[in-house]
Amino acid sequence: MAPPSHCPVDANNGVHHNGGSAVPAETETPLPQGSQHLDAEEFRRQGHQVVDFIADYYASIGDYPVHPNVTPGFLRRQLPAEAPSRPEPGAFAAALRDVRDLVLPGMTHWQSPRHFAHFPASSSTAGALGEALAAGINAVPFTWAASPAATELEMVVVDWLGKALHLPEPLLFCGGGGGTLLGTSCEAILCALVAARERKLAEIGSRRIGDLVVYCSDQTHFAFRKAARIAGIHRDNCREVATRRADAFALSPAELRAAMQRDVDAGLVPLFLCATVGTTQTTAVDPVRELCAAAAPHGVWVHVDAAYAGAAFICPEFRHLADGVGAADSVSTNPHKWLLANNDCCAMWVRRPALLTAALGTEQEYILKAGAAAEGHDVVDYKDWSMALTRRFRALKLWLVLRCHGVEGLRDHVRGHLRMAALLEGMVRADARFEVTAPRQFALVCFRLRSPEKLGGEKTANKLNRRLLEEVNATSSGPYMSSAKVGGMYMLRCAIGSTLTEERHVREAWKVVQDRAASLLRKMEIVYSVLA
Amino acid sequence: MAPPSHCPVDANNGVHHNGGSAVPAETETPLPQGSQHLDAEEFRRQGHQVVDFIADYYASIGDYPVHPNVTPGFLRRQLPAEAPSRPEPGAFAAALRDVRDLVLPGMTHWQSPRHFAHFPASSSTAGALGEALAAGINAVPFTWAASPAATELEMVVVDWLGKALHLPEPLLFCGGGGGTLLGTSCEAILCALVAARERKLAEIGSRRIGDLVVYCSDQTHFAFRKAARIAGIHRDNCREVATRRADAFALSPAELRAAMQRDVDAGLVPLFLCATVGTTQTTAVDPVRELCAAAAPHGVWVHVDAAYAGAAFICPEFRHLADGVGAADSVSTNPHKWLLANNDCCAMWVRRPALLTAALGTEQEYILKAGAAAEGHDVVDYKDWSMALTRRFRALKLWLVLRCHGVEGLRDHVRGHLRMAALLEGMVRADARFEVTAPRQFALVCFRLRSPEKLGGEKTANKLNRRLLEEVNATSSGPYMSSAKVGGMYMLRCAIGSTLTEERHVREAWKVVQDRAASLLRKMEIVYSVLA
Repeated sequence: MAPPSHCPVDANNGVHHNGGSAVPAETETPLPQGSQHLDAEEFRRQGHQVVDFIADYYASIGDYPVHPNVTPGFLRRQLPAEAPSRPEPGAFAAALRDVRDLVLPGMTHWQSPRHFAHFPASSSTAGALGEALAAGINAVPFTWAASPAATELEMVVVDWLGKALHLPEPLLFCGGGGGTLLGTSCEAILCALVAARERKLAEIGSRRIGDLVVYCSDQTHFAFRKAARIAGIHRDNCREVATRRADAFALSPAELRAAMQRDVDAGLVPLFLCATVGTTQTTAVDPVRELCAAAAPHGVWVHVDAAYAGAAFICPEFRHLADGVGAADSVSTNPHKWLLANNDCCAMWVRRPALLTAALGTEQEYILKAGAAAEGHDVVDYKDWSMALTRRFRALKLWLVLRCHGVEGLRDHVRGHLRMAALLEGMVRADARFEVTAPRQFALVCFRLRSPEKLGGEKTANKLNRRLLEEVNATSSGPYMSSAKVGGMYMLRCAIGSTLTEERHVREAWKVVQDRAASLLRKMEIVYSVLA
Repeated sequence: MAPPSHCPVDANNGVHHNGGSAVPAETETPLPQGSQHLDAEEFRRQGHQVVDFIADYYASIGDYPVHPNVTPGFLRRQLPAEAPSRPEPGAFAAALRDVRDLVLPGMTHWQSPRHFAHFPASSSTAGALGEALAAGINAVPFTWAASPAATELEMVVVDWLGKALHLPEPLLFCGGGGGTLLGTSCEAILCALVAARERKLAEIGSRRIGDLVVYCSDQTHFAFRKAARIAGIHRDNCREVATRRADAFALSPAELRAAMQRDVDAGLVPLFLCATVGTTQTTAVDPVRELCAAAAPHGVWVHVDAAYAGAAFICPEFRHLADGVGAADSVSTNPHKWLLANNDCCAMWVRRPALLTAALGTEQEYILKAGAAAEGHDVVDYKDWSMALTRRFRALKLWLVLRCHGVEGLRDHVRGHLRMAALLEGMVRADARFEVTAPRQFALVCFRLRSPEKLGGEKTANKLNRRLLEEVNATSSGPYMSSAKVGGMYMLRCAIGSTLTEERHVREAWKVVQDRAASLLRKMEIVYSVLA
């Protein structure tokens, strides 16, 4: 990789600070010292600027192309190769100008109402300001003593969320389990997997780590394979059970049972199943209850990854999905995806916290113990619940979101997106040129353009749809979608969940897809007729 | 663990929202819907409230006891057992009042000028507002395409920081290596360890995972043992080489060499060394250059954990420590500890990024590829550099900090704390009742009260100092310190590094220690004279 080029200093441009000694020492602005780095009044002044900056961004976010038209290196080439030696005068304001003029035009705008790619990065005033508040307070609640209120608010808010999502009580503190707030599903899955691995190795002997086998479907998020790799599970011992379109790409309990039996027969040891409610590609729903029943005879730990779809559990009409988690050992969901809690926020609950802390616990003298805390009574030291010791005060954000929206407000929020997705699904079905490629379960619609027989039919369908997505995403005022490839079939994914998305954005997005499809089909017909 | 008690609803108290149906539907405030959850003007109004809230907190932070006098459950008992069904009227303002009246009084105030425990959680206006800005923009830069500007700013800023810290160029992008911003050292160490493990297992066969051995000293942070455990290194295969007070608790290359040879002789495979510059207990400095030389013949990956002390590399007088990293494979430091970047921010650099991405890389269809990005030219997809796929836009914060303070400003900041630590060290040495228990290397002073012979001498020294720390920390307007136990010796740790700490706070802290010590010695003398 080539080193970035060093831009010449340009005094007329906020981007290029005075590299080193360009400003003579005599004329330098006096630097803030010590407590002035965190002066209350300076913070107030600059903080108000930042709030206005963000508010202005929200007001104009629809004007940006969702995805910028830039090429790799575009920003590195514009920035100096070294940090400034001394800040330029008015450095904070100059930096904000650069964020506006250089950074924002190069961003993918996840909060745009036309961002339909991946899964949503859900955001709200309460979520953004909860993050800001936590950053301002800047605590490190790795033990109860290191910030009692932060620890207890986390315990309260994971129970609040768990109840709001209709999770079975044995997974909550109030039912003998418990939860924590992490950054990502990857971390949640890894922690659960290590807890399961340590328990199993304690039974069968730690030399047999190479015999452990983990299970998922071919639709499971790569985060699971990554977690298994990190945890030292042998690469050959990750079974990806194939799914079928006829089963709506859900993991089959019968196939799982058979796979486990084959491994047992081969002298291997089934360890862990990662079931998914709402897979990344098509939001398929694995039958958790039946999978737990299949896993139970082997003492397999079942984790339910509901990163995206867990949000829907808040609606009573999806309660049956939450009930299905009853027999699982752990479950995780990301309120930063669809519950208005800004990135990052992953809630994980476990039935037996002692298994987590046995695997991940630490004990050293330099970690202070408060009097009562040392007794272990009613005290949680969250450092022992996850991979990291340092952690942020994420509970504040989630608590603000729940306080400011209420459970009913979040239900309305989720249902609004569900309605818009149903609308889009209906429009896709009403256009015979298209097909819905996977059953819509939540607010993701997967579809593709059928490839007419005269244009090569099924043989060219993937190419056609790949091209369609490129053209849709290339319209600078249009929607931004992503793709999936399932069972060899390439499809477009339209995930509705941005806080700012309204019905009109969905209708406009569909119009763009239809227009690009019509144009593409015409062009291809011309090419084919010339070749024929 | 007992479930939290459910508080009765109290309409006169902001704490207790209206549980469920207490407010008749007719009188409900209309709820925000859809885009109103992120309304620019609502954000502006509430954002300004939050800024003033934080500024007021900074202005009054010295009035709080650093550590609250609360008992486990104090907050859980005061909060309802469930989230509100509908938000109470004025929910945001009510929540802010609860933060002020319930949460802040129960926090450990890491930003207090009298917080001397653990290591500092460094903060600044630029750091806090950088977090706020990133939360407002709410991007998920897991690939270049998923936010080009966020990815490139991260590449730029890790090179800026690396150069400012005098790191050898082969660890930076400009020298063929590269860096990333993670949350914690735990994650950095784990990623490096997994990269090393995958490389080694590719050579010796993956069935030999149980033969891999990792090395550290008995002073290495528990994060390393935790990472090794997560990565599936056998619990018996973590060598903690004993250190000596005579070596200032540094890891001895000769001892390391001997330990590795013993393992090789036993048929085991040395894999990884975690060296530390600035250990958590006493800021001991392992001789990295010599350790790399000892490790090299065995093809051992050397990671340098400079979580705290890496900040000091910014001063030319510590440049030799950065130079020593030249032969290491990876290094990490936490700008959130001592470089004004609020929690969390861990920078990691690796000499060979391809080894990281080989171990942690993912590839799936639903992750969008931009045209040029797919070519692999000059493009970094940071999801392949760490454990997690979802990540925050941390670069913005670090970039703001470097812009607003400049390298010289950060040097001044670090040197200010070094001067205060030297002052404290001098005061400890000037009082014959005390001793400095480990050489001061940076801005941490480790000391203890000598136990007079008539009070049991060395036998009771640990008890005496444990009691002393308790009494110091119990003074509500006094300092808050932590402890270490090294070589059987219990000592007090005074880590100077809070942004707001000034010389007077250090002098006052020492006065409290002296006063409590005098009082404690008097009381013990009375007890001993009665017993005698």
